[in-house]
Amino acid sequence: MSAQIAGCFITVEGIEGVGKSTNIQFIQDWLEEQKTPYIVTREPGGTELGESLRELLLHGGSVSDDAELLMMFASRAQHLAQKIKPALADGKWVVCDRFTDSTYAYQGGGRGLNLDHISQLERLVHANMQPDLTLLLDAPVEVGRARAAKRSAFDRIEAEDLAFFNRVRDMFLARSKQHERYKVIDASQPLECVQRSIKVALQQLKEKVMAK
Amino acid sequence: MSAQIAGCFITVEGIEGVGKSTNIQFIQDWLEEQKTPYIVTREPGGTELGESLRELLLHGGSVSDDAELLMMFASRAQHLAQKIKPALADGKWVVCDRFTDSTYAYQGGGRGLNLDHISQLERLVHANMQPDLTLLLDAPVEVGRARAAKRSAFDRIEAEDLAFFNRVRDMFLARSKQHERYKVIDASQPLECVQRSIKVALQQLKEKVMAK
Repeated sequence: MSAQIAGCFITVEGIEGVGKSTNIQFIQDWLEEQKTPYIVTREPGGTELGESLRELLLHGGSVSDDAELLMMFASRAQHLAQKIKPALADGKWVVCDRFTDSTYAYQGGGRGLNLDHISQLERLVHANMQPDLTLLLDAPVEVGRARAAKRSAFDRIEAEDLAFFNRVRDMFLARSKQHERYKVIDASQPLECVQRSIKVALQQLKEKVMAK
Repeated sequence: MSAQIAGCFITVEGIEGVGKSTNIQFIQDWLEEQKTPYIVTREPGGTELGESLRELLLHGGSVSDDAELLMMFASRAQHLAQKIKPALADGKWVVCDRFTDSTYAYQGGGRGLNLDHISQLERLVHANMQPDLTLLLDAPVEVGRARAAKRSAFDRIEAEDLAFFNRVRDMFLARSKQHERYKVIDASQPLECVQRSIKVALQQLKEKVMAK
């Protein structure tokens, strides 16, 4: 019996401007090279319903703290049911730009929303399913901000202040110490070095899956 | 010190066609008579965000089970934060057309969604706050359906079959036995008798509040 590569779930996390898009493209190129079937998706959003919820969250009027969390997880539940789980069941690798760790970091760390409510919702929506690998692209907030500012006008979330982003970064780093699935990558290095580290993480994951 | 009437939270529940609107008008007239400050509101909806979520739920495309529940409770969290709690804090009575009992009845009883998820979300969103009085207008499904059919075209939820509505009714009745705040009113009686029962329930509630 030949080894069958099962689907793997990879999430890419980090504050704005750390190079998520560039490096997701790099992961995509690597998966192509490996002839591994995959999909690339993102949160919040990733489905038609998710995009509508994202619109309401980013550009809508007043949203209470709990309503914001519940909408984030509604979008996530839909994303899992409609896109992520079917792809994984199909043996595909799923690369997701942000996932629940971003909710902990932005809503929990950044905005100070109830962390206990976040973990209750996490258990409700995906108790038995966590990413196989979480790539945290980490850089000092000033580095990320300078890059993100060049790119486009800030939306509501990006317009927050430096202290906010420092809380977000700290929460990502704190979580990286609690969960073995995290691989922290120093995103202030030259891109070549960042991508060498990502490649090593991907190869290790592939070996782990093939060994099963 | 004169007795101060604090705000009371009244929910009106029941399947389609049992006379919720007519009787909410009756409650409103009674509150006017009593010179009691009040607001009338409804779920799902009740706020701008809630109405947008309601639109997505009733007329949108595919919605997974958990996403549906999370959106219902997002709408409810917003409704509580923005409208219900401020009104109660202001000493107003709040009359709400449907609340969490409808989620148990329609999503839980009717659709068979996870009851444990519903109660987890109820605890998260309003653990420490339940209606002071829940008026359940109860009638055999055939009676309600015949009245509702005369009124308007059915939307997605109303187009469900008879068995669905029987499950919804059964869940309401089961919950009425578990919670003291319920007052079950036989809505197949003549309207005059229904309204006499409602008036008794309102007077009892008022006496209870004044005695505090």
